Amino acid sequence: MRKIIFILLCLLIVNTSVAQNLNSPDGNLTLTFRLNDNGTPSYKLLFKGKTVIDESKMGFTFNSLASFTEKFVITDTKFSTSDKVWQPVWGEQKDIRDNHNEMLVSLNQTSTNRKLNIRFRLFNDGLGFRYEFPVQENLRHFTIKEEATEFKLSGNHKAFWIPADYDTNEFPITISKLSEIADLIGKVRQEPLAAKAPAPGLAIQTPLMLKSDDGLYINIHEAALVNYPAMALNLDDKAFCLSAHLTPDKNGNKGYIQTGTVTPWRTVVVSDDARAILASKLILNLNEPCKLEDTSWIKPVKYIGVWWEYFTGGSSTWAYTDNPDIIIGQTDYSKLKCNGHHGANTAHVKEYIDFAAQNGFDAVLVEGWNEGWEDNWAYAKEHIYSFTKAYPDFDVKELHQYAASKGIKIIMHHETTSSAINYERQLNDAFRFMVDNGYNSVKTGYVGPIIPRSEYHDGQWMVNHYLYVAETAAKYKIMVDSHEAVRPTGLCRTYPNWLAQESARGTEFESFNGNKPDHTTILPFTRLMGGPMDYTPGIFQGDLSVYGKNKAKLSTTLVKQLALYVTMYSPLQMAADLPENYKRYSDAFQFIRDVAVDWDNSYILEAEPGDYITIARKAKGKNEWYIGGITDENAREAVIDLSFLPKGQKFHATIYADGKDAHWINNPQSYTIKTVTVTSTTKLKQRLAPSGGVAISIK
Amino acid sequence: MRKIIFILLCLLIVNTSVAQNLNSPDGNLTLTFRLNDNGTPSYKLLFKGKTVIDESKMGFTFNSLASFTEKFVITDTKFSTSDKVWQPVWGEQKDIRDNHNEMLVSLNQTSTNRKLNIRFRLFNDGLGFRYEFPVQENLRHFTIKEEATEFKLSGNHKAFWIPADYDTNEFPITISKLSEIADLIGKVRQEPLAAKAPAPGLAIQTPLMLKSDDGLYINIHEAALVNYPAMALNLDDKAFCLSAHLTPDKNGNKGYIQTGTVTPWRTVVVSDDARAILASKLILNLNEPCKLEDTSWIKPVKYIGVWWEYFTGGSSTWAYTDNPDIIIGQTDYSKLKCNGHHGANTAHVKEYIDFAAQNGFDAVLVEGWNEGWEDNWAYAKEHIYSFTKAYPDFDVKELHQYAASKGIKIIMHHETTSSAINYERQLNDAFRFMVDNGYNSVKTGYVGPIIPRSEYHDGQWMVNHYLYVAETAAKYKIMVDSHEAVRPTGLCRTYPNWLAQESARGTEFESFNGNKPDHTTILPFTRLMGGPMDYTPGIFQGDLSVYGKNKAKLSTTLVKQLALYVTMYSPLQMAADLPENYKRYSDAFQFIRDVAVDWDNSYILEAEPGDYITIARKAKGKNEWYIGGITDENAREAVIDLSFLPKGQKFHATIYADGKDAHWINNPQSYTIKTVTVTSTTKLKQRLAPSGGVAISIK
Repeated sequence: MRKIIFILLCLLIVNTSVAQNLNSPDGNLTLTFRLNDNGTPSYKLLFKGKTVIDESKMGFTFNSLASFTEKFVITDTKFSTSDKVWQPVWGEQKDIRDNHNEMLVSLNQTSTNRKLNIRFRLFNDGLGFRYEFPVQENLRHFTIKEEATEFKLSGNHKAFWIPADYDTNEFPITISKLSEIADLIGKVRQEPLAAKAPAPGLAIQTPLMLKSDDGLYINIHEAALVNYPAMALNLDDKAFCLSAHLTPDKNGNKGYIQTGTVTPWRTVVVSDDARAILASKLILNLNEPCKLEDTSWIKPVKYIGVWWEYFTGGSSTWAYTDNPDIIIGQTDYSKLKCNGHHGANTAHVKEYIDFAAQNGFDAVLVEGWNEGWEDNWAYAKEHIYSFTKAYPDFDVKELHQYAASKGIKIIMHHETTSSAINYERQLNDAFRFMVDNGYNSVKTGYVGPIIPRSEYHDGQWMVNHYLYVAETAAKYKIMVDSHEAVRPTGLCRTYPNWLAQESARGTEFESFNGNKPDHTTILPFTRLMGGPMDYTPGIFQGDLSVYGKNKAKLSTTLVKQLALYVTMYSPLQMAADLPENYKRYSDAFQFIRDVAVDWDNSYILEAEPGDYITIARKAKGKNEWYIGGITDENAREAVIDLSFLPKGQKFHATIYADGKDAHWINNPQSYTIKTVTVTSTTKLKQRLAPSGGVAISIK
Repeated sequence: MRKIIFILLCLLIVNTSVAQNLNSPDGNLTLTFRLNDNGTPSYKLLFKGKTVIDESKMGFTFNSLASFTEKFVITDTKFSTSDKVWQPVWGEQKDIRDNHNEMLVSLNQTSTNRKLNIRFRLFNDGLGFRYEFPVQENLRHFTIKEEATEFKLSGNHKAFWIPADYDTNEFPITISKLSEIADLIGKVRQEPLAAKAPAPGLAIQTPLMLKSDDGLYINIHEAALVNYPAMALNLDDKAFCLSAHLTPDKNGNKGYIQTGTVTPWRTVVVSDDARAILASKLILNLNEPCKLEDTSWIKPVKYIGVWWEYFTGGSSTWAYTDNPDIIIGQTDYSKLKCNGHHGANTAHVKEYIDFAAQNGFDAVLVEGWNEGWEDNWAYAKEHIYSFTKAYPDFDVKELHQYAASKGIKIIMHHETTSSAINYERQLNDAFRFMVDNGYNSVKTGYVGPIIPRSEYHDGQWMVNHYLYVAETAAKYKIMVDSHEAVRPTGLCRTYPNWLAQESARGTEFESFNGNKPDHTTILPFTRLMGGPMDYTPGIFQGDLSVYGKNKAKLSTTLVKQLALYVTMYSPLQMAADLPENYKRYSDAFQFIRDVAVDWDNSYILEAEPGDYITIARKAKGKNEWYIGGITDENAREAVIDLSFLPKGQKFHATIYADGKDAHWINNPQSYTIKTVTVTSTTKLKQRLAPSGGVAISIK
């Protein structure tokens, strides 16, 4: 018997030094897993023979427990393969193929007799892997001090990055070599309205887009972020090695874990064609299938809102009064006098409802409808808002009836000023109030530091909070659009009522001059990798000085704003500008009226991060196609190959183009509209102005 | 005009140096308020000419704001007087007199133009004062770094103290001179099951009982602790000066305050007769009147419970299984096997219900009825329990029916393991579940560190949590008994459904040998000053070795356990021992069967903190009196003056006395019972054994 054990032991030990390989279905990608001499797990990823990730360590450090990075032996390795097609409730395409090869490695740390599994899935467009903590005798509850996962790059890649910050993703995106980040990051953090809780050390956020000198496009992010903190990446800019930097709580703990659970997937999407990055469905594929039984009530939404007027520098306010000494539950608003320029008043909302109905929108967002806005910057205050009490001049019942009579939904707004605790307290009452008053979607907001005061926006607790809100909303058949929440990781597959998020600089920042011309040529390669963004495009009147105080100017041409409805995929699309501006440019507005928000298929025609993107999409269930092309600060000629159209048929294409003299700085509102006949053999060549675009509808 | 302003200014400045006096209605107490040369507010308190509190500073330090302790001027002083009688929903007496003189001082900090009011109320039995932050232009939201309030004592008093700790009040009480505390406090903190989050520095808790060399009994505590952290006291043991030490959150902030609010009252109860301390209703008087419209459903409760068997060292467990790998919401308990010794099983609970019905109890507490107990020490885990899912062997519907048929209520148990956040999430569902299943009272528990992880048990956030639970419970007509919560401050006047609390070492600690013979002679002078305690007396079988593993021995005689039902006032009284022990000592048990839990009046007959207490009480609405007398480790003769009885009538008194040879260490179960005839002129002399007692019922 002893002999047998000895032989088994030898086998195990021998086993540890054997590298395990996994190939992608098309054979282009090779993943190698091995334990080094010290028993430390590591992996390596090649694409067509080129190094994507060089040998990189894996594992964990726990609080008050031995290191969980070494002295492992492999106890089992299982391989499997999968090739399935599934249908999202909404999306860029109606069918999504999940084709991957899987390797599940079971490890045992001999010094502690503790077990760890690592599951690898290799797709044609990249790698996903996650840690799994099986139920076991010697490990039950533990606190993660740090995840040891590395992503060792092959060189000094070009990076499209924002600084790591535990409380915000709302940074301008910088393009630089990895080696230049250290010099640049401080300045980025000092941008107005930027850093909130900067991660210490040299660290940047995911989704991180990289381009290597040998032509590889690499995107690093994560999928299915559940009950775990969001991951940023430390940068060793000598070794070009990235490593996991989990968001802590304010006690410095990074994750409270029980065995029987798994981490999110770490994702590496890779290609030698930038378009493949945008086309990748790897992150969605790594998320769990839809958990909602009935999804019939979930519908993509095109909307307008009582919103932009708060940013234009006009006098419209969220607050009903100018008296900040209000206390929710005590202040009797019926005894207060309105300040005379409260945006969300019944008559004004009706104007929006009328405009929405006349122009084929689904919904009107109304911000500033509820008690508490007088104090909305009082970050230390836990009880800021009521989510069931409207201001006296916002007639909930009357507006419900009026909107319903016009076929329009009102979108509820729940700004929490990050008092997540108080939002959870009111959550069920708030959702019941919504259902009782005909609302079926909510925009949530998390401005300011989090209460509970131990937490950051991107930590484990808040990650759970956002999901709790989405899950609870689903019980009430409510769709969610969360702003200032943690960056998405494809959970909209599992909870398709979680329609969109913000989690990056959206159009809002145009009113602070906070976006650059290349911003939207990068976002689809970074922020959008995890899921749709409520970017709120559609600003026609880009010079805000016309309204008075605000001197900001839009960073795009008018036509580029149209193109964003296609290039920035989302099932939730706002026409953000004031109705008066749409009336003024009614011909251009026609594209917004027409454009679909759900798709049978999408075609990434041209793409280079930071430079340009051209995408065509087929409207769901319709023989209609919409095309958007955008460029950065440089003019360019887009080549639009229409070979995706059905063969042998003729179509009318309406082309919304930058005017010859258009320029985002001094002539953004110059555009032309023409209609041409096209077929599947057509290749349109279209000039885009500096920070310009092109938008095409084909019927 | 300038001249007038100058004169006004002079008047104001002159005003600052003028001391303002306030006397108690009986003239025995004098409060002096003045501003020193630096404009720092201070107060001083005399009792019959003796110094209770020497000149002591007042004010605040705020985060990121100027100091709020100096450069004040008095802008107004208002005096008023009040003499009213009010009726508590339950209590030690049916009528409570609130007779006080009040002085409201309005201050302005000239350097910042910020306002602060201080309201003093002087009763015959002591002082209450609080800070008020009026709504004003230059101060709105602020964070308290520290409250500057001092209590400067006149000398090196004897103190009855426990260490300051942000997370627990469950310490043995030490009696020592103030000057000795520094040497002793470290050892007390090292007691098993003691310190959780020791307050830094030399600090002790309130209610703090003091006795001066010149014979004054002084009690320092607070009243109406709402939206503010609990106050401990720093001790300067050279100057014998105590100063406020507010419980911080883990970010070091002590209170997030908005103007338009007030602090709790700081209370100083004082007398030259120890009995007056126990008789004081000052803290209740300083709380707001009852806020509940309907209180007809609130009734004092005498109960037994499936509880002590978890402490005796028998095999009974809260948990249904011995498998700790459970995950609430995922684990299917119907597929798990019971460990065979789960306490809260239907058949066993029925036995308790039968015993309760046979012996005139109102209710049966059942702990361990709900899913999650396998993991109840998993402090890092946020989702430990379900409060709506019973274990498979606890039949909620059947037990509801069975208990109702016997006229018995089951007391719900909500141990939270301090995951207050998750409790709040489930709170409304949990209370609805209770109402649906016939429960009308809940025992809550807060073992372990708090989640949210920024918080301590005694900080502002948790103070708000406990009250939120009590207020929400009231909406469902549910009474609350909170364990491990912040020490009470008389809020049971305002929310009389908040029946009792633990917040000190109760009988539970007898099972760890954690209480000393003098413990219950001190508690009424300390912990009970703030409100009733669910002390859970009534242990007849004090030698736990009879059950097996546990070697603990009770620190009292059996009769002293009976006396506690009178000396430890509470509208919630448990008979904590196992039914089998009550059956064995059925004659002694008769006192527990008989004793009332609500009173028309109370008579403090004898009292010296740390030594002895003798109290008589008249049962509410009945011509019945119950008397309890207890002593510390020293035998003594209690002199029981029955002059409170109606004159000229004869009554039968049943006297439960320690046997001649009784002794808490080696003969605790020796007792005698005799019946005698008494009148209002009777003075009973009754010997109490070491840590013994006497209990008398008079009908």
